[in-house]
Amino acid sequence: MNAYVPSMQLAGRVEEGRIGAIGRLISRAEAAVPEAREALATLYRKAGAAHVIGLTGVPGSGKSTLVAALTKRFRAAGKKVGIVAIDPSSPYSGGSILGDRIRMSDHVLDSGVYIRSMATRGAMGGMARATLDAVDVLDVGGFDTIIIETVGVGQDEVEIAKASHTTVVVSAPGLGDDIQAIKAGMLEIADIHVVSKADRSDANRTLTDIKQMMTLNAGFKGKNSWQVPVLGVSSYTDEGFDALTEALEKHRQVAFDTEEGETRRRAIARFRLEKTAENLLIQRFLKAASAHSYALADRLSARKGDPYSLASELLAASDLERSPS
Amino acid sequence: MNAYVPSMQLAGRVEEGRIGAIGRLISRAEAAVPEAREALATLYRKAGAAHVIGLTGVPGSGKSTLVAALTKRFRAAGKKVGIVAIDPSSPYSGGSILGDRIRMSDHVLDSGVYIRSMATRGAMGGMARATLDAVDVLDVGGFDTIIIETVGVGQDEVEIAKASHTTVVVSAPGLGDDIQAIKAGMLEIADIHVVSKADRSDANRTLTDIKQMMTLNAGFKGKNSWQVPVLGVSSYTDEGFDALTEALEKHRQVAFDTEEGETRRRAIARFRLEKTAENLLIQRFLKAASAHSYALADRLSARKGDPYSLASELLAASDLERSPS
Repeated sequence: MNAYVPSMQLAGRVEEGRIGAIGRLISRAEAAVPEAREALATLYRKAGAAHVIGLTGVPGSGKSTLVAALTKRFRAAGKKVGIVAIDPSSPYSGGSILGDRIRMSDHVLDSGVYIRSMATRGAMGGMARATLDAVDVLDVGGFDTIIIETVGVGQDEVEIAKASHTTVVVSAPGLGDDIQAIKAGMLEIADIHVVSKADRSDANRTLTDIKQMMTLNAGFKGKNSWQVPVLGVSSYTDEGFDALTEALEKHRQVAFDTEEGETRRRAIARFRLEKTAENLLIQRFLKAASAHSYALADRLSARKGDPYSLASELLAASDLERSPS
Repeated sequence: MNAYVPSMQLAGRVEEGRIGAIGRLISRAEAAVPEAREALATLYRKAGAAHVIGLTGVPGSGKSTLVAALTKRFRAAGKKVGIVAIDPSSPYSGGSILGDRIRMSDHVLDSGVYIRSMATRGAMGGMARATLDAVDVLDVGGFDTIIIETVGVGQDEVEIAKASHTTVVVSAPGLGDDIQAIKAGMLEIADIHVVSKADRSDANRTLTDIKQMMTLNAGFKGKNSWQVPVLGVSSYTDEGFDALTEALEKHRQVAFDTEEGETRRRAIARFRLEKTAENLLIQRFLKAASAHSYALADRLSARKGDPYSLASELLAASDLERSPS
């Protein structure tokens, strides 16, 4: 058994790029260990150099295959790649499901690639907070490009994909009706659209569909000058990846060297600030409320009160000021 | 144009089962119209008779087809059926996507069936609150069976599916790897497992997989006596629906006539109470914080502070007591 290494000490090792320390500190961020807060705060102030790519798409769109192919390209260009994958977790066991990580086996023995699955835990705002903490750790740990991969269905997942310098939305030809409907909700957050499985005969229709929906939605990007490309790629024929890596590099420059990028970074900071504060506030509330919520819930269950009035009563009864977490 | 009918007046019409009033009041619940609060509170106290079924499954599992087939059965048994479908919404437009509702066209002219799509809007806790308000309206409006259909990927969607008397998890054979991984996160919330497309040759494998995973997870239901059935159904051959409606009826009796059901209703009430309170609290916070969050976010963006400290500062600066919404 290892002795418990203080988080500040781990932070020092993270700066040296030591993988073991990176993994342990991310685990503490994920578990919201209070002792790790100062270390994560220190790393936050030193982070900011890495290009953070949010990559999202519906189930079956081929996200993981795309991430693996992109990783190979980045490695060939000498970049270190961190991957933070957000997997749904069981509401009871809280464990990640590693399923499709297996496809990444080409890279597991390569110290220039770090792959981490995060659980989508219950704590409100917790997933965004933990994910962005993990990004900081990888950033300071020397990873040049960090990919946040999310399933891209829930509101939280979409928000996390947006909280990156460059958001890539992956679509695939031939998915069912309700999958396409979900996809429509994500179209507008894309800086780059990718249609995977471009070798398939029906890929052109998907490309056309996305371009049409973008035309219909024209203007939502406001004053921004970035032209959102729609790119077909195939991991099978290897086509399209040059255009994609080129688009990613171009958008990286927008993110780091323009006023648009600066505005985006501020919006991400505001999102992160508010999520962190909400998370803190809810934790305080649940702690302060626990003494009262069962009795009030019983009144609610017996229909001797309504949700809104009893919730107001619960808030009034919970002294948030006296319960700092 | 209709004149604005006060919500309390609409509530009276809801009790008479008038469809127009039901639709208008649900819209006000969804939009969180303050004027509608008292009416919704009144209806809450009168609700509680309907059997609420949470039906969830990954995209492509055939949820909507199943809901349509079940609705036909319930109608044949003389029951009125309300359906609240939670669709992902665009983060920008906020609009629902109606896509697969089209398959319900058999029922749209039948006043014994009411179908409502809810948007998965941004407001935290808002989706659960609005959905459960809609269930109350339908309940008092005379619908005997109310189905909440959710996509079942995000944490919120899974929680809503749990906040029902009977949770049905739908799986389908032949879905991709990452879809199966998501499904695993939902296995444990099922009171009834349904495998759709049971006419397919690979359906048996899916049935076996689910039964195996349940064996591995044995015990998570604790002291509950309910044996979770795993049922294959086919909308194509019509097989399995007798067993499914029978299981639903059996579980309805558990929900209404046993101590287990009582415990479950209390847990749902506690969930609803806390979600409503959290929602209220976050609204107050965002309102109170707006005067401070830009300046603090700029410090965060410039890395002149860390997320946790600045979030604490934001909370301290936001006077929650003085900003009741």
